Amino acid sequence: MSALFGSCIIGQSGGPSAVINASVYGSIKAALDSGCITKVYGAANGIRGVLEERLYILDEENAAELELLKYTPSSALGSCRYKIAPPEIDDTDYKRILEIFKKYDVRYFFYNGGNDSMDTCSKISKYMAESGYECRVMGIPKTIDNDLVETDHCPGFASAAKYIATSFMEVYLDAHVYDVGMVTIIECMGRHAGWLTAASSLASEMGQGPDLIYLAERVFDMDKFLADVGRIYRDKGKCLIAVSEGIQYADGTFVSMAESSVTDGFGHAQLGGLAAILAAIVKEKTGAKVRSVEFSLLQRCAAHVASLIDIEESFLAGKTAVIAAVNGKTDMMVGFDCDRTNGYSCATKLIKLSDVANCEKKVPDEWINADGNGILRPYIDYALPLIQGETKLSKENGLPRFARLKKIQAK
Amino acid sequence: MSALFGSCIIGQSGGPSAVINASVYGSIKAALDSGCITKVYGAANGIRGVLEERLYILDEENAAELELLKYTPSSALGSCRYKIAPPEIDDTDYKRILEIFKKYDVRYFFYNGGNDSMDTCSKISKYMAESGYECRVMGIPKTIDNDLVETDHCPGFASAAKYIATSFMEVYLDAHVYDVGMVTIIECMGRHAGWLTAASSLASEMGQGPDLIYLAERVFDMDKFLADVGRIYRDKGKCLIAVSEGIQYADGTFVSMAESSVTDGFGHAQLGGLAAILAAIVKEKTGAKVRSVEFSLLQRCAAHVASLIDIEESFLAGKTAVIAAVNGKTDMMVGFDCDRTNGYSCATKLIKLSDVANCEKKVPDEWINADGNGILRPYIDYALPLIQGETKLSKENGLPRFARLKKIQAK
Repeated sequence: MSALFGSCIIGQSGGPSAVINASVYGSIKAALDSGCITKVYGAANGIRGVLEERLYILDEENAAELELLKYTPSSALGSCRYKIAPPEIDDTDYKRILEIFKKYDVRYFFYNGGNDSMDTCSKISKYMAESGYECRVMGIPKTIDNDLVETDHCPGFASAAKYIATSFMEVYLDAHVYDVGMVTIIECMGRHAGWLTAASSLASEMGQGPDLIYLAERVFDMDKFLADVGRIYRDKGKCLIAVSEGIQYADGTFVSMAESSVTDGFGHAQLGGLAAILAAIVKEKTGAKVRSVEFSLLQRCAAHVASLIDIEESFLAGKTAVIAAVNGKTDMMVGFDCDRTNGYSCATKLIKLSDVANCEKKVPDEWINADGNGILRPYIDYALPLIQGETKLSKENGLPRFARLKKIQAK
Repeated sequence: MSALFGSCIIGQSGGPSAVINASVYGSIKAALDSGCITKVYGAANGIRGVLEERLYILDEENAAELELLKYTPSSALGSCRYKIAPPEIDDTDYKRILEIFKKYDVRYFFYNGGNDSMDTCSKISKYMAESGYECRVMGIPKTIDNDLVETDHCPGFASAAKYIATSFMEVYLDAHVYDVGMVTIIECMGRHAGWLTAASSLASEMGQGPDLIYLAERVFDMDKFLADVGRIYRDKGKCLIAVSEGIQYADGTFVSMAESSVTDGFGHAQLGGLAAILAAIVKEKTGAKVRSVEFSLLQRCAAHVASLIDIEESFLAGKTAVIAAVNGKTDMMVGFDCDRTNGYSCATKLIKLSDVANCEKKVPDEWINADGNGILRPYIDYALPLIQGETKLSKENGLPRFARLKKIQAK
């Protein structure tokens, strides 16, 4: 195989994470070092930046600022939630992408995102192949939800998990200071998969975790929930609860939707967070003082408490995608194979994009307790190695010094 | 003056903070080293533990665990919100306290808390003096709200401020990734004083702060607020807003109460957080996508991002109270005198408890901009030195290793 010379475009898509920029930095660094990638472009706002010809010249960024990307949260290049149509229905976007690729001599396309992004990646890859335009397309996984299949875990998950476990420990201590009863309900992200909510169980390893954990994987039963809470509250005077935003009733309706007209004692309806809704219900049924906390955006952007393992693996995923492409691979996503039998080790592997796109991995049923209100040992053994090590984030003025890119636009 | 031999009781009161235990550790250490304090008791749940004879023998705790208190959030001894009656109205509690003090030969009482706690402290001090029972009573300040008078600042404020500034920077990056419009509203604690909300301006020093800041100190005008948001949203497509939970209309009603029947597009009323209420209003008026975040308990317990300056000063405050009492002082609170003219330096001072009790210090009007939607340089110069330095919190399993006390009860 002869070397393929040409430019590359790197793009980010979907919800940001604390470490998605570490992957981008891995890709940029490998591209600059590749010897055959002649120009490194960043797509502004993912595939939309390609369609709208908004490309940043990453070669012209300051090397030290680029390195800070490793510790900078959110998507430095900008993101999008644009879903590309199948080419057989509408090929407008694909033609435009091909036009841009030709104009900038793009022979490598790296796309960093979750399920939907791998689908975009897969479609572009196929279209380029069918068009006879040689362009190597690689997916780099990213999702705090940890729901991509075929990989042990996803970059971004561990840092969010570390934030959640740390915050649970801190709230646990806060929720136990008064000698009066108190129920505290904390809502974690996860529309369909409970990986993040389950991370609250890591706090229990340190003796400061939740009493009850409800994942989106199990059918939610309000009566049973209230009985669980009531029992623990009676026994201990306190009850700390972790709940996935995506819990559903047996008929498939989201609890947050079904109960959105629940009213508090004043006749006010509760909307917004699931935690606030459950708090109103628990308060009404038990008379207990109840507080709700929603981690909201904080759990996906808290770079100051990112996992070093996650940072390094994210960097590795971005780098591996470039090296593999330079070596002739295309139409693949980088994944992880991990071994936890004797310490923890992680190796990269390549997975066909079509095997990943639009699939969803949930927490295995046997990792959840029979009552559906707790997490079992296998999850702890799985997740604990991933949250090890502390970020090397630089500080200035006692605050994070995040990367500041020049973002020089290509003409 | 001859040395006063006897036991001491240390208590914690009011809302917890990330560093209140650092003060307690300072007091415990100084008491153990004092040479005249013969026994160190901790009151379970503040003054309630005294009244109910629930005392922990702190002499019997492991020294290494005690040291971890420096980095452990929340109130390790437990807290209370018990308001003691004036003795002229009802002296039952005072008689009981005197009884317990005599029984345990308590000659030193150290109370760690905010406004109300200094009031409790002051009343006990007076009662003991009038009863002819020699007991030295000292207050140790604590409040994330930073609203105690006569001291430059309060232990606990800086760590909460650091958490808020750090989280604002992270959310700023998160809120700017998409190329679609977005308004983000973040609610900070502060019922009457805006010190914490103003800390969001520290993030602006790093280029990643809010566009608009509304403190409880200024009258809130909904029309002006909507005009401010609309203007910035039209200009930039994004708007990041910091708001004190305690903002009020001109007639003194809390916005969160006055607008609690605001409905969203579905006719659902919004209750709970002020941020959620404002989000519903902004969404209705501007049509923009709006997200709300409430820092809630997280801002007062986030020890993992505590300020080292705050930790050391809190420790110093606790230690100084004990040393001063041993040297004959009583009826005082430890405060700080700070100099920012040539770097930052902080010295302790003693303030009469009656000068502090029940008073409230607000953000100076001249530190807020004329429009009442931003913070000026003097606040930055005041607060920035306080958030410097990182906690030395130990980690285990990639998570905080907080203090675990034995809490052996005195008989």
